Amino acid sequence: MNRHHYGLILAGGRGTRFWPRSRKRSAKQVLNVVGERSLIQATIERLVPVIPPERLWILTNHHLREEIIRQLPEIPPRQVLAEPAQRNTAPAIGLAAHILHAADPEAVMGVFPADQVIAKPAVFRSVLRAGLKGAAAGHLMVIGIQPRWAETGYGYIEFPSGTTPGGTEPLAVKRFHEKPVLAKARRYLAAGNYYWNSGMFFWRARVLLDQLRLHLPQTATILASLPPVASRRFVSELAQAFPKCANISIDYAVLEKASIVRGIAAGDFGWNDVGSWNAVYELLERDAQGNSIALESIALDSHNNFVDARGKVVALIGVRDLIVVDTPDALLVAARNRAQQVGDIVKALEQRNRHDLL
Amino acid sequence: MNRHHYGLILAGGRGTRFWPRSRKRSAKQVLNVVGERSLIQATIERLVPVIPPERLWILTNHHLREEIIRQLPEIPPRQVLAEPAQRNTAPAIGLAAHILHAADPEAVMGVFPADQVIAKPAVFRSVLRAGLKGAAAGHLMVIGIQPRWAETGYGYIEFPSGTTPGGTEPLAVKRFHEKPVLAKARRYLAAGNYYWNSGMFFWRARVLLDQLRLHLPQTATILASLPPVASRRFVSELAQAFPKCANISIDYAVLEKASIVRGIAAGDFGWNDVGSWNAVYELLERDAQGNSIALESIALDSHNNFVDARGKVVALIGVRDLIVVDTPDALLVAARNRAQQVGDIVKALEQRNRHDLL
Repeated sequence: MNRHHYGLILAGGRGTRFWPRSRKRSAKQVLNVVGERSLIQATIERLVPVIPPERLWILTNHHLREEIIRQLPEIPPRQVLAEPAQRNTAPAIGLAAHILHAADPEAVMGVFPADQVIAKPAVFRSVLRAGLKGAAAGHLMVIGIQPRWAETGYGYIEFPSGTTPGGTEPLAVKRFHEKPVLAKARRYLAAGNYYWNSGMFFWRARVLLDQLRLHLPQTATILASLPPVASRRFVSELAQAFPKCANISIDYAVLEKASIVRGIAAGDFGWNDVGSWNAVYELLERDAQGNSIALESIALDSHNNFVDARGKVVALIGVRDLIVVDTPDALLVAARNRAQQVGDIVKALEQRNRHDLL
Repeated sequence: MNRHHYGLILAGGRGTRFWPRSRKRSAKQVLNVVGERSLIQATIERLVPVIPPERLWILTNHHLREEIIRQLPEIPPRQVLAEPAQRNTAPAIGLAAHILHAADPEAVMGVFPADQVIAKPAVFRSVLRAGLKGAAAGHLMVIGIQPRWAETGYGYIEFPSGTTPGGTEPLAVKRFHEKPVLAKARRYLAAGNYYWNSGMFFWRARVLLDQLRLHLPQTATILASLPPVASRRFVSELAQAFPKCANISIDYAVLEKASIVRGIAAGDFGWNDVGSWNAVYELLERDAQGNSIALESIALDSHNNFVDARGKVVALIGVRDLIVVDTPDALLVAARNRAQQVGDIVKALEQRNRHDLL
C-alpha cells in the first residue's frame, strides 16, 4: 500500500428508482439490494486491500450520514461528511481534494460511486492500481469499461481507434459522449473504441485543485476559503459556503475541458451501476422459471418475475415480467420493462406531500 | 313477523380462494371482502326485518365460532353451533331441523349460505317471504335466480317451459342440473326456464325431517338420537354422532329425490356468490382506468387491477388485469383470469405444512 493513496466515496445520491425500499434515510447505497451487504459496504470491502479504511473518506447527505457510520464502523466517523446541499460531483470532489491536500500535499485520490456492483473485485483492483499509477504521474484518469451491449443509460468515453481492452497504460481520451440513443449506442458498440464511463476517477489532489481553479474558478475560491476540516468552525462555514458552489458534475466542469485527461480501457470486471430494480433482477440468481423470489414462495405458471418481500410468503399465479417490492408501508407492482419509471412514483408522492413514504 | 319463522345460516365453509386474507380462523364469510361489514354480518342484516335475531341459528366450525359470535352480538351465542366435522349440508340442515322442531313443532325454516352478496335486499325479502309461504304450505322450496349470463360455476334449476321470473308462487321443479360446461350454460340461458340455484331453501322443519327419514334414513336416525340442544350431554354426544353422518349435500340427499319440491323463479335481486377475488373485483366500484385500488395509491399506465393492501400505499406501473392481495405474512399476485387457482396455493401450503398461513 502507498501511504499517499486516498479514496473518496460519493454517497450522496437518493436512488429513487429503488422505492419503496429506498427512502431518504435508506437510499440505494445503504440497501442490500444485491446480496447480504449494502452497496456501500461492498464498495469499501473491495477498496480496502488497496486503500485502508483510515484513508477512505465518504461524502453523503445529512439523511444518510448516521446510517453510513453505523454500517461502516471501520471508517473514522469524522471522515464521513454530510454535504449541506446537493451540488453534483464537482464541488464534492473539490471539497475532498482540499481536505486531502491539506493533510498530505502528495495525496493521490480515487473517486468511487458508492452504489455500483463489481462482480470481479480482483480484476477491478488491477484497474484501480493502474488508475492510481496514472494519477501519480499527473494525469486526470478516467476508467472506461468495454461495453457488453448497446446501453443507452450510460455515458461513453471515446478512446483512439484500435484501442483494445484490458491494458493498464493511460490512453488518450478523444472525447466524452453523453447517454446515446439506441442507434448511436449500437454504433459505439460496433466501433470498439467507445467505452462505458464508470464514474470512477483518479488524480493527485493538487492537480485536481489546479484544474478546478482553471475551469471552475468561483467554486474553487469558495472551497479554498474554508477553514481546516478539524476546525470547530468547519461545519458551520461549510453550511454557509457549499450552497454557493456551482451545481455541476466534474465531467462537465473539468474533464471535458482539461487537456491532461487520460483513461484506462478496462476489460470486463463485472461492473453494473444497478440503475433500477430490473438491473437487480438481472444480477440475481433465478430459478428454472426465471423468477427471482424467496425459496418458500409459490409460483404457479409464472415466469421472469422479481419479488422482494422479506419475511413474507408470496404466491404468484399466471404472471410474468413483474417487479414486486413489498415494505411495511408501501408496495410496488410494476412491469419489468417500466422499472425506470419508479422515480415517477417518488415524484408523485412528493407532490402529494407523502413525506412518510419518501 | 311470524313467530314460527326461523333462519339457519350455513357458515362452515373455508373459502380458500380468498387466501391470503382467508384463513381457517378468518374464512370468507367473516371477511369484509365487499364493503364495510363481513359477508355474514350482511347476511344477518338483510334477514332480520323478516326473521329476528332470536330465531336465527348459525352452523359453523370450531375455527370460526368465536369470531362469528364476536361479529354478531345480537345472535344468542348458544345458537351458534360448531359442527364437530365437515359433513356437507344434509347433516347440518338435519341437525338444525331437529333442534328447531323440538323447540317449535310448527317451525318453518329458511336456509341461507353465509357468504353471498345480495345487492337488492328489499327485492330479496319479497322472495324470502314467498319462500317461507310455500314452505308453510308443506313444500320443499328452492330459490332459482334468473341467469344474467352463461355461468358455468353454478348449478341450475329447470322450471317448466315458459316460466317467467319474478313470480312469488311455488312452481314445479322439473330437474336440478349440475354446473354445466359453457355450451350447455349457453343453451340454459337461451332456453329461459333454467335458473341459477341460489343454495337457499325453505321448509317446515317437520317436513324436512320426514324427507330425511325417507331418503337418508341412517343419518336421520343418528340425528334423532341426540339429546336436546340445552342438555349438558349435547356437545359431547354430537361430537360422537356427527362424524358418522353421511357426507352429502341436501341437494343430492333429498331435493333431487323428493316429489314435494317447488321453487320460486326469482328475478334479479343482485345475487352473487362471490366465488373468487375476481368476483370481488366485479362487485366493487372502479376508477376510470378500471382499477379497484385505495384512493391514496398511484397507478401509472395500469388498468383493470384489483388491489387489497390495507394500510399501505400501492404503486402500479404498466400492469393490467392483476389481483394483488397483501397481508402481514403473505402476498398474492395473480392474473385476474386465474383467480380460481388461488385454492391451489392453499393446497400447496398444506403440503408444505405451512399451518401458520392456513
